[in-house]
Amino acid sequence: MTHRIAIIGASGYTGAELIRLIATHPGFEVAALAANSKAGQAMASVFPHLRHLDLPDLVTWEDIAFDDIDLCFCALPHKTSQQVIARLPQHLRIVDLSADFRLEDPAAYARWYGNDHAAPDLQDEAVYGLTEFYRAEIAAARLVAGTGCNAATGQFALRPLIAGGVIGLDDIVLDLKCGVSGAGRALKENLLHAELSEGTHAYALGGTHRHLGEFDQEFSKLAGRDVRVQFTPHLMPMNRGILATVYVSGDPEAVHHTLSEAYAEEPFLTVLPMGESPSTHHVRGSNFCHIGVSGDRVGNRAIVTAALDNLTKGSSGQAVQNANLMLGEDETAGLMLAPCYP
Amino acid sequence: MTHRIAIIGASGYTGAELIRLIATHPGFEVAALAANSKAGQAMASVFPHLRHLDLPDLVTWEDIAFDDIDLCFCALPHKTSQQVIARLPQHLRIVDLSADFRLEDPAAYARWYGNDHAAPDLQDEAVYGLTEFYRAEIAAARLVAGTGCNAATGQFALRPLIAGGVIGLDDIVLDLKCGVSGAGRALKENLLHAELSEGTHAYALGGTHRHLGEFDQEFSKLAGRDVRVQFTPHLMPMNRGILATVYVSGDPEAVHHTLSEAYAEEPFLTVLPMGESPSTHHVRGSNFCHIGVSGDRVGNRAIVTAALDNLTKGSSGQAVQNANLMLGEDETAGLMLAPCYP
Amino acid sequence: MTHRIAIIGASGYTGAELIRLIATHPGFEVAALAANSKAGQAMASVFPHLRHLDLPDLVTWEDIAFDDIDLCFCALPHKTSQQVIARLPQHLRIVDLSADFRLEDPAAYARWYGNDHAAPDLQDEAVYGLTEFYRAEIAAARLVAGTGCNAATGQFALRPLIAGGVIGLDDIVLDLKCGVSGAGRALKENLLHAELSEGTHAYALGGTHRHLGEFDQEFSKLAGRDVRVQFTPHLMPMNRGILATVYVSGDPEAVHHTLSEAYAEEPFLTVLPMGESPSTHHVRGSNFCHIGVSGDRVGNRAIVTAALDNLTKGSSGQAVQNANLMLGEDETAGLMLAPCYP
Amino acid sequence: MTHRIAIIGASGYTGAELIRLIATHPGFEVAALAANSKAGQAMASVFPHLRHLDLPDLVTWEDIAFDDIDLCFCALPHKTSQQVIARLPQHLRIVDLSADFRLEDPAAYARWYGNDHAAPDLQDEAVYGLTEFYRAEIAAARLVAGTGCNAATGQFALRPLIAGGVIGLDDIVLDLKCGVSGAGRALKENLLHAELSEGTHAYALGGTHRHLGEFDQEFSKLAGRDVRVQFTPHLMPMNRGILATVYVSGDPEAVHHTLSEAYAEEPFLTVLPMGESPSTHHVRGSNFCHIGVSGDRVGNRAIVTAALDNLTKGSSGQAVQNANLMLGEDETAGLMLAPCYP
Repeated sequence: MTHRIAIIGASGYTGAELIRLIATHPGFEVAALAANSKAGQAMASVFPHLRHLDLPDLVTWEDIAFDDIDLCFCALPHKTSQQVIARLPQHLRIVDLSADFRLEDPAAYARWYGNDHAAPDLQDEAVYGLTEFYRAEIAAARLVAGTGCNAATGQFALRPLIAGGVIGLDDIVLDLKCGVSGAGRALKENLLHAELSEGTHAYALGGTHRHLGEFDQEFSKLAGRDVRVQFTPHLMPMNRGILATVYVSGDPEAVHHTLSEAYAEEPFLTVLPMGESPSTHHVRGSNFCHIGVSGDRVGNRAIVTAALDNLTKGSSGQAVQNANLMLGEDETAGLMLAPCYP
Repeated sequence: MTHRIAIIGASGYTGAELIRLIATHPGFEVAALAANSKAGQAMASVFPHLRHLDLPDLVTWEDIAFDDIDLCFCALPHKTSQQVIARLPQHLRIVDLSADFRLEDPAAYARWYGNDHAAPDLQDEAVYGLTEFYRAEIAAARLVAGTGCNAATGQFALRPLIAGGVIGLDDIVLDLKCGVSGAGRALKENLLHAELSEGTHAYALGGTHRHLGEFDQEFSKLAGRDVRVQFTPHLMPMNRGILATVYVSGDPEAVHHTLSEAYAEEPFLTVLPMGESPSTHHVRGSNFCHIGVSGDRVGNRAIVTAALDNLTKGSSGQAVQNANLMLGEDETAGLMLAPCYP
Repeated sequence: MTHRIAIIGASGYTGAELIRLIATHPGFEVAALAANSKAGQAMASVFPHLRHLDLPDLVTWEDIAFDDIDLCFCALPHKTSQQVIARLPQHLRIVDLSADFRLEDPAAYARWYGNDHAAPDLQDEAVYGLTEFYRAEIAAARLVAGTGCNAATGQFALRPLIAGGVIGLDDIVLDLKCGVSGAGRALKENLLHAELSEGTHAYALGGTHRHLGEFDQEFSKLAGRDVRVQFTPHLMPMNRGILATVYVSGDPEAVHHTLSEAYAEEPFLTVLPMGESPSTHHVRGSNFCHIGVSGDRVGNRAIVTAALDNLTKGSSGQAVQNANLMLGEDETAGLMLAPCYP
Repeated sequence: MTHRIAIIGASGYTGAELIRLIATHPGFEVAALAANSKAGQAMASVFPHLRHLDLPDLVTWEDIAFDDIDLCFCALPHKTSQQVIARLPQHLRIVDLSADFRLEDPAAYARWYGNDHAAPDLQDEAVYGLTEFYRAEIAAARLVAGTGCNAATGQFALRPLIAGGVIGLDDIVLDLKCGVSGAGRALKENLLHAELSEGTHAYALGGTHRHLGEFDQEFSKLAGRDVRVQFTPHLMPMNRGILATVYVSGDPEAVHHTLSEAYAEEPFLTVLPMGESPSTHHVRGSNFCHIGVSGDRVGNRAIVTAALDNLTKGSSGQAVQNANLMLGEDETAGLMLAPCYP
């Protein structure tokens, strides 16, 4: 049986990435595509790289016949997403890629996003979508909140270490290098090629990046106490990819062992041999995440590096992985595409 | 039934691309990988992006047990390729990705490549591998010679026009913009990031590029007379992709109509609506080729633009497409991956 | 004596490039900077790379005290430029970087730019700013119209050849590869890093690019008859640089000799030895233009390649060169900066 | 008076950068250029971007007439450099850009570089070339050892903080993002465009990078006790630039104040307003270093970011700055070139 999929917000990069993945998914078919600002257009004119696919034209989301839809991906900006999802049919399975249902505490949402949550009742039923750690809940969920791409990367590096008590909790530093597609297809001066190519800079310094809300929520839950990491993202002259370099205190061998054990059976997470480190090049366009551990000449310090593709494992690939669970598909269905290198 | 595939020359970019494509091919499995200079190494150390695959370690090609092999891709440098293929089992199906069997006339080979052909008898049986134009021959062939990536791009733009007599034959200009992976994983100063990024230049000016041998052979056959095009490649600051801008004399509408008709049923070749033009971005990582036609304010002139990915449709994707024909698979098997954009 | 310079339109890339050049110009000082949309801001906030300079804050152009100004660069968008310049003091020396005063014939302007010229009287006194060919007129001019960056590149390749009668006039093809900064600091989707990096495409196909107005005007004057070239620009994944590949009929040796003779004494134009070809890498950030000539195996065909930096020699460097002539400075003053490579 | 300058190792990127800077230096002229592997060649063939300069051809260093030379830049690889400098005339002023004379302790040199020092006596007289902190010594020196480019960046961020006692000494983390030209014009697979473009990875993890020798030496001297920082470099898909993100404990306001005071009079070092952060884009091609300070929501933590161009302020620009001091020129002579942006 083929599941019929709708995508709301199909004119952005995560929408396009969903379609790319579904294109070769054996159990999914794209049944409806919505993008209200471009309703009426053919996808081939919005994303010519999808020209070979037999896709429905863009419509407004209000025009989707949801009775025929098995699952809906919602790839809208935050704040808009909660407003739209609140108006979707109550029984519809939804994977939301926005930030709107990631934070369990509406006060935390208001603090990080600057507006009150418009659908706190939906928040109550939403499941946090970091697949590897919430499999059962996701499989049973109606509404899954996809994680932030930076938040996913940092959590893959740190969750087993915090849960296992093998690192210090008060001096964790996450230095992230982020590809520009994470910022979406937005008309902003700082996303122009002329402003980005051949250089780099930090942004959201000082603990102001919104994905910190996810780190706080998840790491504190794991540790049973408040955990506040330092997190500084940097904009890279590259389209796809996140590299996290995480500085922790703890025994490097224990760190490596803990991560290796935790991910031994995971199809998409690979811990490299001790001392090796990953590259975003080697996961580009794929749902894989490569993780490395190194020690340092400074005693009791470990460096964990994690690389994934922000559009795939960090967003749309994760969303498909969650949809697979929700619809009873094999979790890896449609997601075993090899990275595109070079 | 799954066909068992060997790849000789697996440590280069076209070798890696073959593996990427076979990774999700429903009817192929990688049975042996050879790279004599790296024999004994694991593929994960040579190409970490293939780490998730269960691949055999690299061996020397002499160590492959060819009795178990259904088809062998040979991705060696030219000159080496003919020497190796001459020593392979006589009945083994082979798709060669080098330049060694592209030119029917050994004298032409010697002129363009600077050395005598070492296996002229094999040349006699080799079929030129431009799939869309040699389907029957390829399906029946034992040895198929993959085309040059630039040669493929130019031929997709021009073959139906020459065959149809709708353009002039004496003033064809091909201006090509080529991604750097076409030059392979070679340690050359001009392929360094520092030498290439953020700039461009022409190379092989004056009609000296070896792919001209293929243009001459194929276009002259089609026209029934000698055809000598001008062809100037340019090295682009990008890893994948070829964009051909072809200047011809003729009626633009006739040009568009002829190409549209010729490729109407082709799964991988798309002619865009009149006046639109393709981008290499929109075919990256895929086996598709997008073709555009425009007129010019100068009368009776048409501009044909064609974009493909040199590693996929220009090389390894074409090779898999040919292998599909040779082994009785669906021609598109394993090749419907959507382009990776952005 | 130091000349006091004003720049209107200082918040764009050509404005910033003017300031970069004036920063080390021995005879110029920046006396006023205008950008109406950013009036009141410090230049360090608009262009942090100019932070080390002691620059005046941005004002509206209406607030500039023009009595103290020796020369004004106007780096506004076309159409706005003519409106502003018409209201500047009548005696003020002006170098305009827009397209507004390049075309002598108001009808041609209206045809290429889609609006009637708002200051046809000023057009009468404007001098076309291609320095090497209009030195005397520029030195005596009050108003100089900077050329298009593509138009400059093509003319450097072709003017001596057309004037000298050494090439055919009816089959000239200009294939240009253009860096993205030529499009300015505009918020357009196609200028985003995610849309541009790692790929290329043609644009303005079919003889529709506005710089053709300049080619028509200048080449026809030189030839004493109408000349209509084919010109196709391509957007490159690079910030600076234009590479023109020009296909002409004629004797390659005569072509090389004619260009070499024409530019033998030029400080900024270099003709490479026969058969060599230039790279945009080698002129980046400089006022130099490198020109190469090759023959082709097809008889009586020559390929002229020309490389310059669109922001420098193609725009702001040319503007400073013209200002030097207008103010009696050495023509090369402030312009001998070596290219920034790699 | 013009000082006559020789450059040994002129065929590498730092050699080319020296020539670029000297090209517009009012008091220096290039009198001799050596590169033993390319002796006899014209610089225009090795670095076509320097074609407009009237430069001497390359010779072997043994063929330089040192009697006519006022100062010699030595831009050779480490180990070779000490062997060559040991054979240069005893009185010749030398600025060495290699790593050979940076470490005062020969045992430290042997430990970090893996070979015994071949000229320990010269080491005794060598002065560490971080201009802003060793001005008097450099002005009086015969032999100056240029610093590592990463070492310079980290020291600009940290020296005043360590000297001033405003940060903790035991938890300093330097995360550096480095452009590829820092690795030189070397034929290494990992420096190919195809391997680097559009991705990033860490290298020299675990406290193994050789520039740590400099950090240890300088920070320990400043602190009066052993200081061992963590330092992890990352290779960026960009040619020029280093961005250091430095995580320290301490009061952010005190950190900002200390750096601002320390660099208030420095012509090339700029501390941005509190909370702002620099970009490598904004210093490219220049001798400037921009430094930012931010606090964090985690108490008593500060993040110092520093950006410079590794080839200029990190290497050849520093070298010219030191040569200016050694030869009695104004320290900024030839170095006030504005950054090349975009």
